[in-house]
This record gives sequence, structure tokens and C-alpha cells, in this order.
Amino acid sequence: MLEKVRVIQYGCGKMGRVFLRYLYEKGAEIVGAIDMNPDVVGKDVGEVAGLGCKLNVPVRSDAENVFAQCDAHVCVIATRSLLSEVYDAFELAARYGVNAISTCEESFYPWNTSPALTNKLDKLAKDNNCTLAGSGYQDVFWGNLITSIAGATHHITKIEGSSSYNVEEYGIALAEVHGAGLSPEEFEEKIAKNDSLPSYMWNTNQWLCSQLGWSIKSMNQKLIPLFHDKDVYSETLGKTIKAGNALGMSAVVTTVTNQGPILETQCIGKVYPEGEVDTNLWTIYGEPNTTLKIEKPDTVELTCATIVNRIPQLIMAPAGYYTTEKMPPARYLTYPMNVYVDDFWR
Amino acid sequence: MLEKVRVIQYGCGKMGRVFLRYLYEKGAEIVGAIDMNPDVVGKDVGEVAGLGCKLNVPVRSDAENVFAQCDAHVCVIATRSLLSEVYDAFELAARYGVNAISTCEESFYPWNTSPALTNKLDKLAKDNNCTLAGSGYQDVFWGNLITSIAGATHHITKIEGSSSYNVEEYGIALAEVHGAGLSPEEFEEKIAKNDSLPSYMWNTNQWLCSQLGWSIKSMNQKLIPLFHDKDVYSETLGKTIKAGNALGMSAVVTTVTNQGPILETQCIGKVYPEGEVDTNLWTIYGEPNTTLKIEKPDTVELTCATIVNRIPQLIMAPAGYYTTEKMPPARYLTYPMNVYVDDFWR
Ligand SMILES: NC(=O)c1ccc[n+]([C@@H]2O[C@H](COP(=O)([O-])OP(=O)(O)OC[C@H]3O[C@@H](n4cnc5c(N)ncnc54)[C@H](OP(=O)(O)O)[C@@H]3O)[C@@H](O)[C@H]2O)c1
Repeated sequence: MLEKVRVIQYGCGKMGRVFLRYLYEKGAEIVGAIDMNPDVVGKDVGEVAGLGCKLNVPVRSDAENVFAQCDAHVCVIATRSLLSEVYDAFELAARYGVNAISTCEESFYPWNTSPALTNKLDKLAKDNNCTLAGSGYQDVFWGNLITSIAGATHHITKIEGSSSYNVEEYGIALAEVHGAGLSPEEFEEKIAKNDSLPSYMWNTNQWLCSQLGWSIKSMNQKLIPLFHDKDVYSETLGKTIKAGNALGMSAVVTTVTNQGPILETQCIGKVYPEGEVDTNLWTIYGEPNTTLKIEKPDTVELTCATIVNRIPQLIMAPAGYYTTEKMPPARYLTYPMNVYVDDFWR
Repeated sequence: MLEKVRVIQYGCGKMGRVFLRYLYEKGAEIVGAIDMNPDVVGKDVGEVAGLGCKLNVPVRSDAENVFAQCDAHVCVIATRSLLSEVYDAFELAARYGVNAISTCEESFYPWNTSPALTNKLDKLAKDNNCTLAGSGYQDVFWGNLITSIAGATHHITKIEGSSSYNVEEYGIALAEVHGAGLSPEEFEEKIAKNDSLPSYMWNTNQWLCSQLGWSIKSMNQKLIPLFHDKDVYSETLGKTIKAGNALGMSAVVTTVTNQGPILETQCIGKVYPEGEVDTNLWTIYGEPNTTLKIEKPDTVELTCATIVNRIPQLIMAPAGYYTTEKMPPARYLTYPMNVYVDDFWR
């Protein structure tokens, strides 16, 4: 389409700042910005994003008014990790008929972890002719890279995946969900025992099964705290994690499908001791076996770029809560994002 | 669609044998098989593929009659590496209105290396309402894996790729194109000097540029012979390659685009000395940098599986010579391939 894509940035924290710059550099018009952190509320988005120029759009905490006072195509939600926590933001966008895409890890595939909320949003989005979805790092690195290799495989018996990331790179929300800083007892109580807490790999396994056309026979997850033998300082927590307390955790999710293949995926999120780096390692077993390794992925940039690159597809997707395993893979934007929005979609 | 996909296998060599088994196991009906090698002509395809049962379909050398005496949906062509060498097979399939897909490396993206032949085939295929394409290992491992990562990237300045494979795993055709066994002088004369010979990465760079929406400003390729300090026996050539003669070559292709990004890709194809293994290593430079590594890919299986997995898309694609960068990525077939052919395509 010829007009620029108009975007509201919902959440102007660590990720939000990167989103604002990527959106601006890919030719979006920033028409609104929302946050409730007093440190950013009132600031100009150009300043928040470090653009070097003002855009004369202030970060505001009165979310409803922001939606009421502009006509946005898209809202990017980067606030929290659970669907229940981003529900209000999605609901607001849907009520105003604004397409929305979120970094919320559960929102990547929330159909089974939060079916009632997802279906309410799906209905509301359809009533208001807009699309809601979740995306981020997992969309490409736990998602389409794996199904691309599946597309080169004759017979799959098992998919094994392991991904690690430094929770220091994200906000406090993520650090807390990973139990960073907790004692073994606190971890057991607050994290391990809490079955209702979906791990990111849980949603990812379901995304993979959905894209591969598999139905799920059984699933289980084990949350394992990860320790270190020395004290490690966490900037995000603003304190030192004592040796013997959790730096974070590994969530191992095992999915058995009715079609045969098993998924065993592991997500390691913790405050890194010195020297450790991110790795993303996946193996498809069967005929043949194939192992993919990504060395030191820049997960923040990759997350923000994937979501920004998905905006044209989000706009063109059918109305409803439309998870990304049903969309084409995210596509690099050489040109301003509006160029990639075909006019036939309306 | 409910009926089985009917397939003619054109070329029953190293790859063809794997194709026959994969096709059979993915629920295709093998209705014809073509080869001119007296060692396989007359044999039953079940025997050639090692299925453990006869299919009562003999390998035949009279290609035209095979097409005339069955009604196939698809022909899989696995004979040679250059479009000029597989032209007759494509032409025959197109004349009979049979969709065809080939392992021929040039056929992956032949629009610029053999435009006249490709356009003739495109016209013929459109006149007969069928689709022609090339695919194989590069489709996923030099193609969609790279563009998937591009889809998670904000800004690309350069794409660097390097892939090595053992020419022993493929037939004589591939070994010859790589100059395996030639003396340095012969290599210079027959391979390096011969500009008209497209390297596989040449076609791959053009496929990548096409999918990423980039136009090409300049391209050049350097063919570098690769030697070893000891004699190496080649089963494919049926002789020992003396130390100092070429085991194969590295083809380095550099593409400069008008949009800015540069592609520098290198394809190492040679007879491996003991201990060497295949590697596929790609880095996208920009914001951010991302490196992908595939360890010891089973290129034969991956090639055959990718092509078989693409058959439903080939059937549903628009008529003409329709290169795979325009199709969705190859998709794993959990069920018989006909299940993936939507009936709306007709
Ligand atoms: N999918 C992925 O690949 C991926 C990757 C990275 C991050 N994430 C997730 O994305 C989320 C954001 O990450 P981040 O690093 O940017 O976190 P962050 O630095 O904490 O930023 C979040 C911002 O949103 C604000 N906020 C929270 N709830 C809000 C609400 N209801 N209304 C308005 N503003 C609200 C926060 O304000 P306060 O500071 O006052 O709370 C904060 O300023 C996290 O949940 C993280 O786990 C996902």
C-alpha cells in the first residue's frame, strides 16, 4: 500500500526502545507510545529510541486515550510474558480494530495454555476485523528454521532442541519468571511446583506440532533450577545472586504426538556467569539426522526484527487470533514495510 | 486430493534409487522409470530401490513411450547438472503436460544462466498447463534457511556462505563438473577458463536475490582447484587421484546488489580425503550478525527428501517454469503426499 504503516508501541522498555527504532527505520509512522513506567512516561519516543531526533510523540500511560486519538494499523505489545498479563493490551487493540503483535512468549501459541482468553480475543478480533498474534525470537529460531529442516527430511522420529539465553538482556519480568535469584526452596515453591506456569518451550512445541500437522498425545514439563558455584551479579535484579541460589532455570518439555514423532525441547534462561554464551542447538532425528547450530544469536535484535518484519503479514492475515505457524515465514524488509502490504488483502 | 500422486522417475542412478524409495514410502504411485544405463534398464523399480518387493514397473530407455503410455502427475528428473543436459527431459514432460522437478543444480534458478532454454520451457509448460522447477539440497540449506534468518534481521549488509560436499556421494556428472581428477593444467583449461559453466552458487545467489527482492549490479565467480598432498581414491571416477591433481574445486561467487547487500558464497565440491566432513556455514552480517552451522548434512537424503516434499507444491504452483523461491518452503510430509494437494488448485 502507498500510505505508511501507522504503529502504536505498547511497552517502551528494553525491547520497546529497539522496536521504536526498527519501526522508524523500516518506514513506519509512530503514532502512539504507551508505558506505565514513570521513567519513560512523558518522554518523546525519538529520545526513548535514541533516534537523534524528536518525533513529537510522547510516551503516555493513558492507553485507552492513545487508541482513541489516532488511527493505527498496528500495535506492537512488549510488556510482559503471560497472556493474562498482556490480555488487556490485546483487548484494547482489538476493540479499536487495530492489528496487534506481541513479544509475550505465551502469545506465540496460547491456544492450549490459555484457551479461554485466546478464544475471547479471537472472537473480539474477528468482530472488529483485525489480527492478533505473538512472535519473537522463537518464531524463527525455534520455529521456522526447524520446520525448514523438517521440509528436507524424509522421516522424523524425534526433534530435540535446546536454547539458552541470558535473562540479563531482558527485563525484570523475564528474570522473575525464570526464578533468577531464588533459593532452591523458593524455586521449588514459586516456580517448579507451579504447574499453571507455561514454559516458553511448551508453547513452542505446540506451535511446531501445529505447523507440522501433528496432534498431541501427551505433554509434560520439568523445570530445573540452574546453579553456579560462585556469586553472580545480576544488573536486572540489581543484586548479587549468591552461590547456591538459582541463576535461572532449564525448562524441559516433552511432547509425544499421535503421529509418532517426539519433541524434547529445553529452554535455558539464566543470568550468565562470565564466559557463557547463548546457543541454539536443534537436531531432527530420522532419515536423515540433521543438526543446526546458531552461535551467539543476538536475541534482542532478532526478536524485534522478526516482529517488525512480520507486520505486513499481520496486516494481511485473516481476522482473529491468528498464530504465526499459519503465516508464511517472516520476510526481510529491504524496503519500507508498507511496500510489502498487497492491496488485495482488504 | 484423494487419488495417489502418479510419478515417473527419470534417472535411476544414485539419487534416483533414493527417490524411488522415498516416493513409494510417501504414498506415490510409481508409474514409470527411465534410464539409459544398461545396468538398470529392464530391472524392476522395486528391485532398483531395494524396496523388498516388486512394483512391476521396469526401468526403460524409451523415454517418449513411457510418457505416452501412462498418465503421470509428476516427473522427477535426476540425470545431469546443467540445464542444457536436462532440457530434453523437461521438454518431454512439458509436452505431455506432466509437472517436472529436477536435481539439476542449474535448474534451481536458470533464468540468467540459460535464459533462452528456460523461457522456451516456461512457454511450453504454460501451453500445456504444467509446472517445471529445480530443487534439492540448496533449496533448504543455501536457500530457505538463509532467508528465514534474513526474516529475523533488521538490516543486512552481507551474506557469506560456504558449503562443502563430497562428490563421491553423487554421480559421475557432478564429479566431472567439479574437475575431479584433472591436472592443474587440465583444470585451468576445462574448468577455470570456461566462463560459460555456471557454478551452483551462481544460481543460488540469484535465487536468494530473487527471494529477497534484490536486483543484481554485478556478479563474478572464481573457480579454484583444490589439491591434497596424498593420493586419494575416487570410487565415482573409478581411479586414484594422484597428489597434485584436483580433488574438486571451490567456486566463490560474489554478487553485488543495487540495494546494497553483497553475497559472497563458496561451494566446495571435492573427493574427500579421509577424515573430512561436510559443513554448511552461513553468516548474515548487519544488525544483528547471525551465524548458522549445519554439521555433517546428509546431502543425498536431504536432496531427495526436499524434492519429494515439494511435489504437492509443484502440482499446485502456477503453470510455467516456476522457480522455488516463489513457492512456500518445502514442507515435511507426515501423510501420503496427495493429502497435501488441495483440490482448489485445478
Ligand atoms: N518472544 C521473545 O522472543 C521475547 C524476547 C524478548 C523479550 N520478550 C518478552 O517481552 C516482554 C518485554 O521485555 P522487555 O525486556 O522490554 O521488558 P521491560 O524492559 O521490563 O519493558 C517492559 C515495559 O513495559 C511496561 N509495562 C509492563 N506492563 C505494562 C502495562 N500493563 N501497561 C503499560 N506498560 C507496561 C514496563 O513498565 P514497568 O517497568 O513499570 O513494569 C516496562 O517499561 C517481556 O515479557 C519479555 O519476556 C520476549
